[in-house]
Amino acid sequence: MLDRQYAESIQTRIDQKTKPVGSLGQIEEVAFQLALIQSQGKTNAVNQIEIQKPTAIVFAGDHGIADSGVSIAPSAVTQQMVLNFLNGGAAINCFCRANQIDIKVVDTGILFPVESGHPDFFIQRLGDRTANFAESAAMTAQQVTRGIDLGKSFVQNIIDQGSNLVMFGEMGIANTSSAAALLAALTGESAQTCVGMGTGISPAQYEKKVALVAQGVARCQGQNPLTVLAEVGGFEIVQMVGAFLGAYEKNTPVLVDGFIVSTAAYIATLIEPDSREVMIFAHQSHEAGHKVVLDKLHAKPLLELGLRLGEGTGAALAVPMVKAAAEFYNTMASFAEAGVTV
Amino acid sequence: MLDRQYAESIQTRIDQKTKPVGSLGQIEEVAFQLALIQSQGKTNAVNQIEIQKPTAIVFAGDHGIADSGVSIAPSAVTQQMVLNFLNGGAAINCFCRANQIDIKVVDTGILFPVESGHPDFFIQRLGDRTANFAESAAMTAQQVTRGIDLGKSFVQNIIDQGSNLVMFGEMGIANTSSAAALLAALTGESAQTCVGMGTGISPAQYEKKVALVAQGVARCQGQNPLTVLAEVGGFEIVQMVGAFLGAYEKNTPVLVDGFIVSTAAYIATLIEPDSREVMIFAHQSHEAGHKVVLDKLHAKPLLELGLRLGEGTGAALAVPMVKAAAEFYNTMASFAEAGVTV
Repeated sequence: MLDRQYAESIQTRIDQKTKPVGSLGQIEEVAFQLALIQSQGKTNAVNQIEIQKPTAIVFAGDHGIADSGVSIAPSAVTQQMVLNFLNGGAAINCFCRANQIDIKVVDTGILFPVESGHPDFFIQRLGDRTANFAESAAMTAQQVTRGIDLGKSFVQNIIDQGSNLVMFGEMGIANTSSAAALLAALTGESAQTCVGMGTGISPAQYEKKVALVAQGVARCQGQNPLTVLAEVGGFEIVQMVGAFLGAYEKNTPVLVDGFIVSTAAYIATLIEPDSREVMIFAHQSHEAGHKVVLDKLHAKPLLELGLRLGEGTGAALAVPMVKAAAEFYNTMASFAEAGVTV
Repeated sequence: MLDRQYAESIQTRIDQKTKPVGSLGQIEEVAFQLALIQSQGKTNAVNQIEIQKPTAIVFAGDHGIADSGVSIAPSAVTQQMVLNFLNGGAAINCFCRANQIDIKVVDTGILFPVESGHPDFFIQRLGDRTANFAESAAMTAQQVTRGIDLGKSFVQNIIDQGSNLVMFGEMGIANTSSAAALLAALTGESAQTCVGMGTGISPAQYEKKVALVAQGVARCQGQNPLTVLAEVGGFEIVQMVGAFLGAYEKNTPVLVDGFIVSTAAYIATLIEPDSREVMIFAHQSHEAGHKVVLDKLHAKPLLELGLRLGEGTGAALAVPMVKAAAEFYNTMASFAEAGVTV
């Protein structure tokens, strides 16, 4: 749990800046959260919030349930998109370039592996892809444990190399089905409530997706989060759960992207409730389940731009808000400094 | 009116990028708008959207109605905040620094003038401050015309010096009263609907503010926009109306800030309806009248961060979204380029 001994002095510093109290809305909230995190273990509240080497980590994994036709694209596209990430041609690359964010791509188990010596590409495969969770467990308990460990170590390495703001993205055809099943199983909400249109399926596909998700969820009654991850999870989701836990252990803020990443964040909070404290929610998507999981996390994201792509695009777009919050905290004048008499 | 001969080829270029159609939401819409604007007068749709020297222009002006106690602060604060802008200590300065935005400050008529040789400070005073519009016309017809001309020339100079993305901010104690009156007079909505809490007044002040606004609005029945500006407008608002018209004449996109700037934008569209085409709406505030004016303009802003400060802060925070849209348009791979088979 974060030490809150400097919470009051941080809030006072924010409230004395030359503006009506609270008039910068969520920017002030982000500044408070960053300052509190960066003051941990210090002898005073920090005077400067430092944002160093913001890094997006895109976890890619394939899903057996893709064969059931729950997505607009086949699993081969996961590989093609990984290559697109490595070539710098995807949306996440554009937004990382625009906002000076480093990008790392992790193969957590994609159906068609990629041969690449790209320095930002990492292989942490838990298998070729998950089993079809509508029929049987997606993975073993050992795969879950190993995935969490791998995700945790990965983000901690990135942090040890100098990043103090991380964000996670995902790529995996059919992974909204897995996220919806995880969410339904862990919250008790219906499959209908948690399943959305993904990147754009037909109404008939939607009905099928709901039915398949419900089949997986039926095996999860009363199970703990790790077992639910084994039953209906995905390799990239498991590694993201570990990455959230790893960032929390290092007191490092994480910008949380859309539905799938938020579901991983939620599972991290079921394992370690205090991990919520380092999460900054980036983007509210229209995907049906996203509202459910954000409500569970008491989160109001910074942005709502109608994105429905994943990859970490929402998180990358929110990085300038974090930088603006830091600049506000670091350099905005107080009433006394500016001679403003309100 | 913008020439739409390249609209289809721009949309095709966007739709062929490696993502489901429309899955980047408002980022795609901004990219389309920028590409269309920058393709005007060209022999092809542009391949590269260029964002050069984004510039925030903060128009400051004082309001006679401030003496009636409609605001949390006295008019002296307008001067103090102008000095704060010039010293780099205000919120708008922080967000401009964070996002590499140039800033210019214009005195359109503040009660206590500022003596400053600051290179980014400009004097375009229309008077010492407006008259109290609850009692009589805020300004003369000549002041309106001159203010529009000054605002128009000012922004056109900025554009001629190399900026191709501008945004306007405002500072003026009591200027939400003026904006609410303008909006009520020009839309037929009630004063009650258009008046909000400003930066944070009491319920008693709110009632008074509604009554005073209604007094001004009563004189505006059936009047044209220029006369309404004279009756209940503000010097900074009049100059912003001119600035919108000036940016439109130069085919230059304008990021539109909160309630007061949006009201100026709306008035610009009443004078020149096509000026709507260069407007990109930045921030949805909670100020009551803002929703009214955005509905009139059929606008859905990019951000909704709970800001209620003005100064152009919402517009400055949206600049990274515009840069991200440009990067998306310029460098994201197409399905063919990336070998993605969807």
